[in-house]
Amino acid sequence: MRVILGIQYNGKDFCGWQIQPNGRTVQQTLEDALKKLTGENISVQGSGRTDSGVHALCQVAHFDTKSTIPPQKFACALNGLLPSDVQVLFSMQAKDDFHSRFSAKKKTYVYTFYQSEVNLPLTDDYAQRIVGKVDVDKMQAGAKYIEGTHDFKCFLASNSSVKDTVRTVYYCKVKKKNNLITIEVRGNGFLYNMVRPIAGTLLYVGEGRFAPEKVKDIIEGKSRLDAGKTMPAKGLMLKKVYYKGVKFPKIY
Amino acid sequence: MRVILGIQYNGKDFCGWQIQPNGRTVQQTLEDALKKLTGENISVQGSGRTDSGVHALCQVAHFDTKSTIPPQKFACALNGLLPSDVQVLFSMQAKDDFHSRFSAKKKTYVYTFYQSEVNLPLTDDYAQRIVGKVDVDKMQAGAKYIEGTHDFKCFLASNSSVKDTVRTVYYCKVKKKNNLITIEVRGNGFLYNMVRPIAGTLLYVGEGRFAPEKVKDIIEGKSRLDAGKTMPAKGLMLKKVYYKGVKFPKIY
Repeated sequence: MRVILGIQYNGKDFCGWQIQPNGRTVQQTLEDALKKLTGENISVQGSGRTDSGVHALCQVAHFDTKSTIPPQKFACALNGLLPSDVQVLFSMQAKDDFHSRFSAKKKTYVYTFYQSEVNLPLTDDYAQRIVGKVDVDKMQAGAKYIEGTHDFKCFLASNSSVKDTVRTVYYCKVKKKNNLITIEVRGNGFLYNMVRPIAGTLLYVGEGRFAPEKVKDIIEGKSRLDAGKTMPAKGLMLKKVYYKGVKFPKIY
Repeated sequence: MRVILGIQYNGKDFCGWQIQPNGRTVQQTLEDALKKLTGENISVQGSGRTDSGVHALCQVAHFDTKSTIPPQKFACALNGLLPSDVQVLFSMQAKDDFHSRFSAKKKTYVYTFYQSEVNLPLTDDYAQRIVGKVDVDKMQAGAKYIEGTHDFKCFLASNSSVKDTVRTVYYCKVKKKNNLITIEVRGNGFLYNMVRPIAGTLLYVGEGRFAPEKVKDIIEGKSRLDAGKTMPAKGLMLKKVYYKGVKFPKIY
């Protein structure tokens, strides 16, 4: 039986999603809990890696098991075994050909900045501080150039070996509410570490260091050196993963 | 010179505000930083204690110093010496007769609940989970009985020795936004631990266990046993402290 999990985590104390020899990871934490629950050595496949410090409102993963636990009961059973910074929002049976990564059609990420003269302890775990004024309208104007199907090589991490760097971004919205500025991006897929340099580039636009139109030039130039810097992981959150024909329960 | 501090803290890893022999406290952490900064043994007086786990959006404190550091520079200087879960939002000179506790005229607290079937790692540090539906209109109707000048003995912690239990609550508002329900209370003062049983009592009203009118009876009955239970500290935040003739810089 193949089971889908919807998983929320606070990335602060995790070295990212993917299992690694040293360091606490979300994937390993889930596999350990599944081992305790079922006695099986279960491999959990996520929709994609998230970096060290990145949060997930709802990461999606799947695994195969011979357990007789009803699929929708895994959420509750696992939560009792999981630490408080990672919890399973829902579990459900999947078709055998469902794959959390290869079946994913779209993903939405949110990058959050906050404006403050000082670090704010009640905000700083989930957002990146910026000092001074930024022009959100200009950021939104720059964000428009990110929408559409483009070769996003300009946002590709230097250590990435990926060949096909063309992706489609359905929207890139910049919003301001009180002292928070959010950048929400939905795409059919993202290059490794793509949203953090997008956030950095749009921040430069907001600060007036780049004109909004420069975002177009940066994308066309295909050089990582032209784009803004990669913003810290703590401001980034994987919000949602979309699959065709799979409806997840509404959670909050 | 007397200096006022506006302080934000994430209460999660603090054993509250007040210095105690064992356990990390906000007051001690501030005094340690002031000692490093000035070389003086400085006593920091807060507007009031907050319990272990309670957060502060802006706690107010004062201290006396012989330092020649300009008063408004203490914020920045202290922040470099403070851990990330407590930061000074602003510092300013006070009149010599200013006292963070005795000069305080009003305080605002917020208690936050979130509705979810499971613990949400991205919310759970700052809010108390509730399961199932609650009627926010009924909670607001119950909250109306808390407003005004009353003997609030019904919300007094059993271990408190305070004699005068009459306080004035200027407002008690219940709001719902997405999955968050907040109770915001402003008063001329609060009994030790008063907001957490108010939150518990209004939760019972929302759940239908108490009729809204029962809140009036509970207050008039003056017995702690009649009120709802004391809700966990993590959902409580000291939002603001008000003083006559003292204007603080706007901070988030």
